[in-house]
Amino acid sequence: MPIFDFSDEYFMQKALLEAQMAFEEGEVPVGCVIVCNDKIISTCHNMTKRLNDCTSHAEIIALSAAQEYLQSKNLKGCTLYVTLEPCVMCAGALYWSQISRIVYGAEDKKRGSSLFGNLYHPKTEIVSGIMSEECSLLIKDFFKTKR
Amino acid sequence: MPIFDFSDEYFMQKALLEAQMAFEEGEVPVGCVIVCNDKIISTCHNMTKRLNDCTSHAEIIALSAAQEYLQSKNLKGCTLYVTLEPCVMCAGALYWSQISRIVYGAEDKKRGSSLFGNLYHPKTEIVSGIMSEECSLLIKDFFKTKR
Repeated sequence: MPIFDFSDEYFMQKALLEAQMAFEEGEVPVGCVIVCNDKIISTCHNMTKRLNDCTSHAEIIALSAAQEYLQSKNLKGCTLYVTLEPCVMCAGALYWSQISRIVYGAEDKKRGSSLFGNLYHPKTEIVSGIMSEECSLLIKDFFKTKR
Repeated sequence: MPIFDFSDEYFMQKALLEAQMAFEEGEVPVGCVIVCNDKIISTCHNMTKRLNDCTSHAEIIALSAAQEYLQSKNLKGCTLYVTLEPCVMCAGALYWSQISRIVYGAEDKKRGSSLFGNLYHPKTEIVSGIMSEECSLLIKDFFKTKR
């Protein structure tokens, strides 16, 4: 019997831990992990405030780190888990990486890339709604503290 | 009589010089400058090969540098000049920056963001076709050397 169950929920939980770190740092709480052969090769959370840089979304930083780790721009065989639906910028970056799977938690009804059609690579499988309530609640709680 | 004419062509010429540097380095030759009050605050060329990172397009790196320089995520009042039409990723990044103007040279008929609708910020003015022949020729020459 395996000690770990490497399910989508297992890895989304890891992404959610990253999102909680973002929350504690006053960043919009979005977290992300990239997995290759059941191994997490890169984790990050949103850092736009800390780095004063609108391109520092969790996915962009995690993509750069994964490519550095694999020494390859091509992330075929990898899965990205992210707590919030990727925006246009991140969907465009994921396109270039040709990543095999993208799993996201909460929908982003304001700036989610799906509002603009399918911007992902045709070979990328998209899975949505994994732990969406937990992912969404964290973001709602964050914006409550900002009012 | 002014020594410099700060026209769109003037700054596109600077972006083209960056693109030529990319060419010499074996990178897809795209160059970019960001201008604020007639002053170039950031310049970059495509570095995806050197950095082994599909997110290292000229615009993304130049945006990060401009935000660092201005200590602001908001690039209102700035203009980005880029030799090739921005892709989806870069259009999405430019959206977040709320940059005032984007001026590009050559169209990208394969991956230009305009193929996917208007992904830019509604307040961003888009100007296309500045020195498009020179910008386009450099890219054609590059891909000829790759055959």
